[in-house]
Amino acid sequence: MADARPVNNGVNVEALIAAREALSKAPQAARFKWRAACEWKNGTHSHSIVEGFYGLGQEQQRKSTFSFSADHPEVFAAEDQGATPVEYVLVGLASCLTAGIAAVAQHRNIQLRSVTATIEGDMDIQGILGIDSDVRNGFGGIKVTYDIDADAKREDIEALVAQSQKRSAVYDIVTNPTNVTVVVN
Amino acid sequence: MADARPVNNGVNVEALIAAREALSKAPQAARFKWRAACEWKNGTHSHSIVEGFYGLGQEQQRKSTFSFSADHPEVFAAEDQGATPVEYVLVGLASCLTAGIAAVAQHRNIQLRSVTATIEGDMDIQGILGIDSDVRNGFGGIKVTYDIDADAKREDIEALVAQSQKRSAVYDIVTNPTNVTVVVN
Repeated sequence: MADARPVNNGVNVEALIAAREALSKAPQAARFKWRAACEWKNGTHSHSIVEGFYGLGQEQQRKSTFSFSADHPEVFAAEDQGATPVEYVLVGLASCLTAGIAAVAQHRNIQLRSVTATIEGDMDIQGILGIDSDVRNGFGGIKVTYDIDADAKREDIEALVAQSQKRSAVYDIVTNPTNVTVVVN
Repeated sequence: MADARPVNNGVNVEALIAAREALSKAPQAARFKWRAACEWKNGTHSHSIVEGFYGLGQEQQRKSTFSFSADHPEVFAAEDQGATPVEYVLVGLASCLTAGIAAVAQHRNIQLRSVTATIEGDMDIQGILGIDSDVRNGFGGIKVTYDIDADAKREDIEALVAQSQKRSAVYDIVTNPTNVTVVVN
């Protein structure tokens, strides 16, 4: 019965496969630059926007600009005017893995019905407060828990998630080091 | 003249110093858990929410819930219904460093007038497309560029930024590896 109608998770896998084919012949076009701009408001509150990016050999514009407020919570004596910076990383990781699950499911002809994830990062704030230099500033560890309803066996669903991790940009960013250069104009 | 009026960057440094004092005596209260929940919508589009967290020995509620849409752009044959997951990481990093600059400036008695940052991450998408296994999925590197107007010498402004990097949670997450566990219920 699962084969009686085409699988549709809303991912255009044919276009992605065509892009892979095209980019393997023109690797320069695969070099992207993703950007954000951040403006300090007051205290720990800032406002960031995400709009254009560079890729496929040219500047790419979007139809809309995405805006984000970040702040610290009231227990840090701040005004809680937005999610904390570390929560933005959690949103990025969960959304990257989830997009990957949909794309891999489409490629493997698995119909998804629902995918939800909870993500939790442990942090000992003795690090950022400078109490104990042996405590890192970031997360001690992150756990992502998926609930997935799909036309597939449990082992195939687990394999979807594993493949998404393998190709996830944010999973790589969080689990491996990236060089960051900070300059002042 | 800079000493004629108190510096006010909107950061309650006294409260943070008191918190540091209190938490150094009660390290268990410094263990925080930050969370997000992500729901797949269609294709690569997902919706995440950030609300409560755990810290200071108990569950912490917020007055509001923060909501975020993530998606891939049209050049990836997607619908561009939100920022990409990797752009969320850039927003997290820029906002973390910016909050830190404000806090450190307050502590060092430096009045900020404006702080803006642009952040750019290079990515060769041959990685995520699986074209070349030697290319990583995430950013090849990230550059953050600050423009800061403040009542301080250039070297003091540069020192602010350096101290913010030293204590930034997201800078640590991006530049150092973090263990991520992904499970399926």
